Amino acid sequence: MSLKPSTPKGTRDFSPHEMAGRNYIFDTIKQVFKLYGYMPIETPAMENLSTLLGKYGEEGDRLIFKILNSGNFLEGVKEISVNESNKLSFDICEKGLRYDLTVPFARFVVQNQNDITFPFKRYQIQPVWRADKPQKGRYREFYQCDVDVIGSNSLLNEVELIKIIDNIFSLLNIRTITKINNRNILTGLSELIGMPEKITDITVAIDKLEKIGFDKVCQELISKGLSQTAIDMLEPVLKLTGSNHEKLNILRKIFKTSEIGLKGVDEMVEIFDYLSAFSLKSDIELDLTLARGLSYYTGVIIEVKSMDVAIGSVCGGGRYDNLTGIFGLPGVSGVGVSFGADRIFDVLSTLKLFPEEIQASVDVMFVNFGKKEAVYSLQVMDNLKRFGISCELYPDNSKLKKQLGYASQKKIKWVVMAGEEEIITGLLSLKNMHTGEQELVHSNELLNKLKINKKSHG
Amino acid sequence: MSLKPSTPKGTRDFSPHEMAGRNYIFDTIKQVFKLYGYMPIETPAMENLSTLLGKYGEEGDRLIFKILNSGNFLEGVKEISVNESNKLSFDICEKGLRYDLTVPFARFVVQNQNDITFPFKRYQIQPVWRADKPQKGRYREFYQCDVDVIGSNSLLNEVELIKIIDNIFSLLNIRTITKINNRNILTGLSELIGMPEKITDITVAIDKLEKIGFDKVCQELISKGLSQTAIDMLEPVLKLTGSNHEKLNILRKIFKTSEIGLKGVDEMVEIFDYLSAFSLKSDIELDLTLARGLSYYTGVIIEVKSMDVAIGSVCGGGRYDNLTGIFGLPGVSGVGVSFGADRIFDVLSTLKLFPEEIQASVDVMFVNFGKKEAVYSLQVMDNLKRFGISCELYPDNSKLKKQLGYASQKKIKWVVMAGEEEIITGLLSLKNMHTGEQELVHSNELLNKLKINKKSHG
Repeated sequence: MSLKPSTPKGTRDFSPHEMAGRNYIFDTIKQVFKLYGYMPIETPAMENLSTLLGKYGEEGDRLIFKILNSGNFLEGVKEISVNESNKLSFDICEKGLRYDLTVPFARFVVQNQNDITFPFKRYQIQPVWRADKPQKGRYREFYQCDVDVIGSNSLLNEVELIKIIDNIFSLLNIRTITKINNRNILTGLSELIGMPEKITDITVAIDKLEKIGFDKVCQELISKGLSQTAIDMLEPVLKLTGSNHEKLNILRKIFKTSEIGLKGVDEMVEIFDYLSAFSLKSDIELDLTLARGLSYYTGVIIEVKSMDVAIGSVCGGGRYDNLTGIFGLPGVSGVGVSFGADRIFDVLSTLKLFPEEIQASVDVMFVNFGKKEAVYSLQVMDNLKRFGISCELYPDNSKLKKQLGYASQKKIKWVVMAGEEEIITGLLSLKNMHTGEQELVHSNELLNKLKINKKSHG
Repeated sequence: MSLKPSTPKGTRDFSPHEMAGRNYIFDTIKQVFKLYGYMPIETPAMENLSTLLGKYGEEGDRLIFKILNSGNFLEGVKEISVNESNKLSFDICEKGLRYDLTVPFARFVVQNQNDITFPFKRYQIQPVWRADKPQKGRYREFYQCDVDVIGSNSLLNEVELIKIIDNIFSLLNIRTITKINNRNILTGLSELIGMPEKITDITVAIDKLEKIGFDKVCQELISKGLSQTAIDMLEPVLKLTGSNHEKLNILRKIFKTSEIGLKGVDEMVEIFDYLSAFSLKSDIELDLTLARGLSYYTGVIIEVKSMDVAIGSVCGGGRYDNLTGIFGLPGVSGVGVSFGADRIFDVLSTLKLFPEEIQASVDVMFVNFGKKEAVYSLQVMDNLKRFGISCELYPDNSKLKKQLGYASQKKIKWVVMAGEEEIITGLLSLKNMHTGEQELVHSNELLNKLKINKKSHG
């Protein structure tokens, strides 16, 4: 039987070349998370459906991959109608693949609350799965890199996350803008006009201001059912310009009578005050159109965009006060952001920002001239490996041309030839595959020569 | 709604403490794989069921987790009987979770054959899933660490894998014995007695020799249907002792007429000859009882056991000539081994062999004395981070005792206190949480003091 092999729709293999790029991203992110005192955890790929369902809205529930119960999964199922697939799925599936890392993290915190030192600073880098329609840049399996603090209300956590974002993208050489907003400000706006249900329409309209102008935005708001009085009250918000502090000053005046609105303004002022003490590489901008689904967040909302590639957000998150409550642990506030490794990969590829040295292959290949020479080479190689120089012996005694072709395709820089003559004289032929130069090097000198070369490349 | 949260049966969360141990194992393994010139790949968690089924035997097929098709999965299903769960599962599931890394790797090689430089040396470290009955040390989600060469018949690959095994376990300080056998020797034995179907019974019987003695083993073989003539021919095999070379010399005599048996002996002699040129830390032993499922391997079979913890094998593998054939790429030989991270973790835990420094937490915690002091501390911390020293500011202005308790629970060694007075004088209070000692350090000296301390532990 011969099958035509392929990966399932929306999933991908990663070649060594792609892995080098991905590991560069993961390593950079992890390094910064660790510098700021976050510790790694991992949770299982599968969660009980009872843990996952009802956390992502109706649409989210539909996109969860369900796992068929093992054994005779129809045992206990009395009757089946071919028209009731949704009902049946819950009879025959108890588990699903995780949809994000936030809900499993909340479950983890509640389940392990007695062993955790709060505030708990954790990071988690694992794949998630969504039965979304696959399209360019959207996959059914993709990695999330989450960093959260749970158990502290301090806005210093928000400040720290913004510094982490700045630190990571600056190390990756990606120019970004970090947009922040506050759920309390959005709630304040809806209080202001007495129409809490219109808050989405308002943010959508504000978002179009630059494109279509003030008058058309007002027309749109009226068509959505807002009164002229409401629009008059919103006018200063819609026309909000200036620096973050200027915007916040105007909002403070608008929110004279909205306690929650003022709370949002105060929080943002405190955050910007803290941030002014540090020289960040990227701009941080108060953006009232930022909502990110609304229902989830209870305080600050954060979203990061690449300034050079139009690809949606490369990082996002915010504060959530109620997440562990659904699992029986109320009153624990958390705040965190998630980095999208796949989009960051696309930005780095598009802008050709991957450093050359990460694609480095094996340091040295030894040519195979037969059994006796192989043993000699392997002994020389053992010594190189002790000093961290990676090397391989071509496994077969093939023609020299074929062996050099292999080294060249794998982009191996150095090739060592230790044939009969070299073994007698103790002088090895060292070929630089980049320049084509070849020289005789005493076996004792080989290590130093390669070590110096390795160092100068980082 | 309040749920009692838990992970699905047979799956686990990993805390920061456990992650430190696991990453120590993964990092050690990866480091050696890289030194020997192997490159990482990754494949999706899901594979098409057509890729997975029929590769692991009937029992294996049963243990594959199937994923319910998304959307209306009953569409097109005409009739359902509650007694036909197995048949229905293939109508409603197209995908499954990978069961090991070998079959996905074979699929990868065939699918990407035009982009791969052969011989292809790859490693892959990812979780696999099996719907096995969970029990102590057996999980439904566990990691495999596979290293394979594909596209080379040279026995130097087997030699390299044995060196890699020796290298990894010696770095981990685990005393192991590596047992090797050869499928051709086993086939030779069954040719010898003219009963190929009895080979499993023979290996099982040989395995009991030390425990129950020669006579009882013979009784058992007769009860399994072997003739006295067959047992007479096997007697020298059953009584095989001595060094690997002595054993192979006896086998060579026994196999006078078995071409395939002699091939097996020749291969083992060549491998042991190569190995004699290197000083390995662990013993390598020819073990005729080693079979590992038989049907899978076509040449050398390898299995590694811990000498100090009875836990089954911690690594195993062998040569397979036909794996890519089922996907339409015949004639490509591969050889590889898989390291069991979970069992290695258990061995290291049992023997208390995890190095202390891997549990290191954040390097420094700064006490939070309020907003002004926080900004000052954050600026000092930014400078420390630039030099790779990880630090965190306690996020809330809580009582000193609570903050120090947090540092102590997280096993943070250094605590810095920068209060109002310290800011004025420029002298920071540095407390060593291990010794309780406290001293005043000028902010310019702090970096050097912590750097020296970090180096001496790293």
